[in-house]
Amino acid sequence: MSAARVESIRFADDRLDLLDQRRLPAEERWLPIESAADATAAIRDLVVRGAPAIGITAAYACVLAARHRGDDRAAWDADLDALVAARPTAVNLRWAVERMRRAVEGSPGAALEALRAEARRLHREDRSANEAMAQHGAGRIEAGSTVLTHCNTGSLATGGTGTALGVIVRAWREQRLKRVLACETRPWLQGLRLTAWELAREGVPAEVLVEGAAAGLMQRERVDWVITGADRITANGDVANKVGTLMLAVLARRFGARMMVVAPLSTLDPQTPDGAGIEIEQREASEIWRAAGVEAPPPGVDAWNPVFDVTPAELIDCIVTEKGVIEPPFDGRIRGLFDGA
Amino acid sequence: MSAARVESIRFADDRLDLLDQRRLPAEERWLPIESAADATAAIRDLVVRGAPAIGITAAYACVLAARHRGDDRAAWDADLDALVAARPTAVNLRWAVERMRRAVEGSPGAALEALRAEARRLHREDRSANEAMAQHGAGRIEAGSTVLTHCNTGSLATGGTGTALGVIVRAWREQRLKRVLACETRPWLQGLRLTAWELAREGVPAEVLVEGAAAGLMQRERVDWVITGADRITANGDVANKVGTLMLAVLARRFGARMMVVAPLSTLDPQTPDGAGIEIEQREASEIWRAAGVEAPPPGVDAWNPVFDVTPAELIDCIVTEKGVIEPPFDGRIRGLFDGA
Repeated sequence: MSAARVESIRFADDRLDLLDQRRLPAEERWLPIESAADATAAIRDLVVRGAPAIGITAAYACVLAARHRGDDRAAWDADLDALVAARPTAVNLRWAVERMRRAVEGSPGAALEALRAEARRLHREDRSANEAMAQHGAGRIEAGSTVLTHCNTGSLATGGTGTALGVIVRAWREQRLKRVLACETRPWLQGLRLTAWELAREGVPAEVLVEGAAAGLMQRERVDWVITGADRITANGDVANKVGTLMLAVLARRFGARMMVVAPLSTLDPQTPDGAGIEIEQREASEIWRAAGVEAPPPGVDAWNPVFDVTPAELIDCIVTEKGVIEPPFDGRIRGLFDGA
Repeated sequence: MSAARVESIRFADDRLDLLDQRRLPAEERWLPIESAADATAAIRDLVVRGAPAIGITAAYACVLAARHRGDDRAAWDADLDALVAARPTAVNLRWAVERMRRAVEGSPGAALEALRAEARRLHREDRSANEAMAQHGAGRIEAGSTVLTHCNTGSLATGGTGTALGVIVRAWREQRLKRVLACETRPWLQGLRLTAWELAREGVPAEVLVEGAAAGLMQRERVDWVITGADRITANGDVANKVGTLMLAVLARRFGARMMVVAPLSTLDPQTPDGAGIEIEQREASEIWRAAGVEAPPPGVDAWNPVFDVTPAELIDCIVTEKGVIEPPFDGRIRGLFDGA
C-alpha cells in the first residue's frame, strides 16, 4: 500500500540509472551513470535534486568508483571528494559520502561487497523513514480534508515515497482527502513540473495554482492542511524551506488552515537555536527572467531572489519525523527526538 | 513632471492602434484595431489589459462600431454587448461602454462626432485622474520609504501615468523612495514583463521578486507600503484586484507594512455592498502550464486559476482616488465621493 509508484534512482548489477528531472514533465528519460564523474555531473547539473535523493545517488556512485579504481585508494578518495564538491551546500551529500568512506578500510575494490551493502542500506533507511513519516502524518489528517503543498517533496526528491508528498499520497490512498492542491513554486516550478507529474503517476487527482492564488483559495474554499517539507529545522522549531513556505504559513494562520512540516531527523538541526542563525542563499536574477522569455532584465532592474525563507515555529502546528509527530512547544521536544538515538 | 513616458493606446483619424502587451518586453509592436470585433478580441486576448485601458479601448471601439454599423442601432448595440462580455470582472469596461451608449440617441452613424468626442473625453479624464491620484498618493509616502507593488498599473494599464505605478513614479521623482520592488505576477507575469519595463523607461531603479518571496522580504527587510491598483472597489471598501493582492495585504498586516489601493472613481462600485457579490473570473489551466514548457498538464491534474482575489476592507489602510485619499471606515466615505458628482 505504501510502495512508491515513482522512482528516480535505479541500481542493479552495479549499474546506476537516474531519471533526468530536468526534462520532466515533457519527457521521461533515464540517464545511465557509468562513473563517479558522471554522477558528479548529474548532481551538479540537477539531473537529480532533493537532499535525500542526492545522498543516495552519491552512495551508489561510490560503488561505481570502487569498481573503477580497484586498489587505488587515493584515486577513489579523489572521486569521493569531487562528489562532495558537486553541491557544496547539500548536507546529505557529504553525510552519505563520508558514510561510504567509513565502510572501506584499505582497498575500495576489495570492499566492493561492503560498499554495495552500505549504499543499499542507506537507500533502504531513507525509504523506511519516508514510510514512517507518511504513516504518522497521514494519521493526523481527518477524512474529507483539503490539503495544499509546495515545491517537490516526493519520490523524485527522496529514496522512497517522499516527505510531505509521501504523507499526501498515503492520506489519499487511505481515502482521507477530498482535494489536493500544489503551488507551482516559482522560480523553478518544482510544483508544476515535478509534483503534479508525481501525483498523476500515483493516481492522485490534483490541482496546481500560482503562489499568488493561495490566499484567494484559502479565503473562498476550505483548506484544512498546508503540508510542506523542510530544508532545516532549528532547535525551537523554526523551519527553513523553499521560498513561499512562510507566505503559506501566514495565510494558513489567518484563514484557519493548519501547517504540517514533514522532515526526517537528518533535517533537524538542534545545535542551531533558531531561524535567525540561518543564512538565506540568494540566486541569480536570470532564474526569474527566463520565464518572461528574456535572459537579461531591462537596465536598472534587479531581482530579489532568495531560495528559502524561514517560518517561525509559532506558525507551525506539527512537525512529522520518522519518530512520530510533535506539537508546540517544539523547544525541548526537538532535542528530545535525539535522546538515546 | 508628471507626463507619462510610455503610452499604449493611440487613436487618430478614426484609427485605433494598441501596443501589443503580450509581446513585451521582447518586442514593441503596435496592433491595428479595425473593428469592434478586433477590439473585443484584443481585450479578451490581453493585447490590452488594465481596467482603465480596457475602458478607453472599448470607448474608441464604439466609434469604430458606429462607422461600421451606420444606422443599424441593433447591430451597434450587439457590438457593444460583445465588448462588455470580453472580460467579466472589469467594471470599467461596462462603465465605458454604457457611457458611450448614452451618447447616442438613435443612429450611431449619425452620432459619430459625439461618439468621438465622448471617447476622447473619457481618455482625457482618465489621464487627469491619473495625475491627481499620483499627487494625492505620493503625498502620503514618507521620505526614505520602501514600496512593493503588484501586477501592472502604469501607463500600459491606463490612459495616463497609471494608478499605483503613477503614485510610485511620482514618489520616486519627489525623492521619497529608497527602494521599489515589484512582484512578477504569475501567471501572466505583468510585473516582470510590463512593470519592470515601465519602471526602466521612467528611470526608476527597481527589483522584481516572485510572489512566494514577498513574505520573506517583508520579514527580513522593512517594507513601508504595499501599493496596488484595483479592478473593483465595493461600497464597504472591499477590493477586487489581480490575484496575489490579498496575499500581499495579509502579509502587510502581519509584517507592519501599510496597504494603499489606488483607483479612479470609475473603478468604485458603490452599488455593490461588499466583495461577496463579485464574480471572480477563472481562466484556463494552460496559462499556468505554459511556463513549464508544456501546453497540456499530466492526466488527472487540473488548475485553480482565478484572475482576481478580493481583499477585505479591514486590511486596507487607504484608498486613493482622483478626489483625494480616504481612510477607514470606508463605508459611507466611498458613497460620499459620488455626492454632487
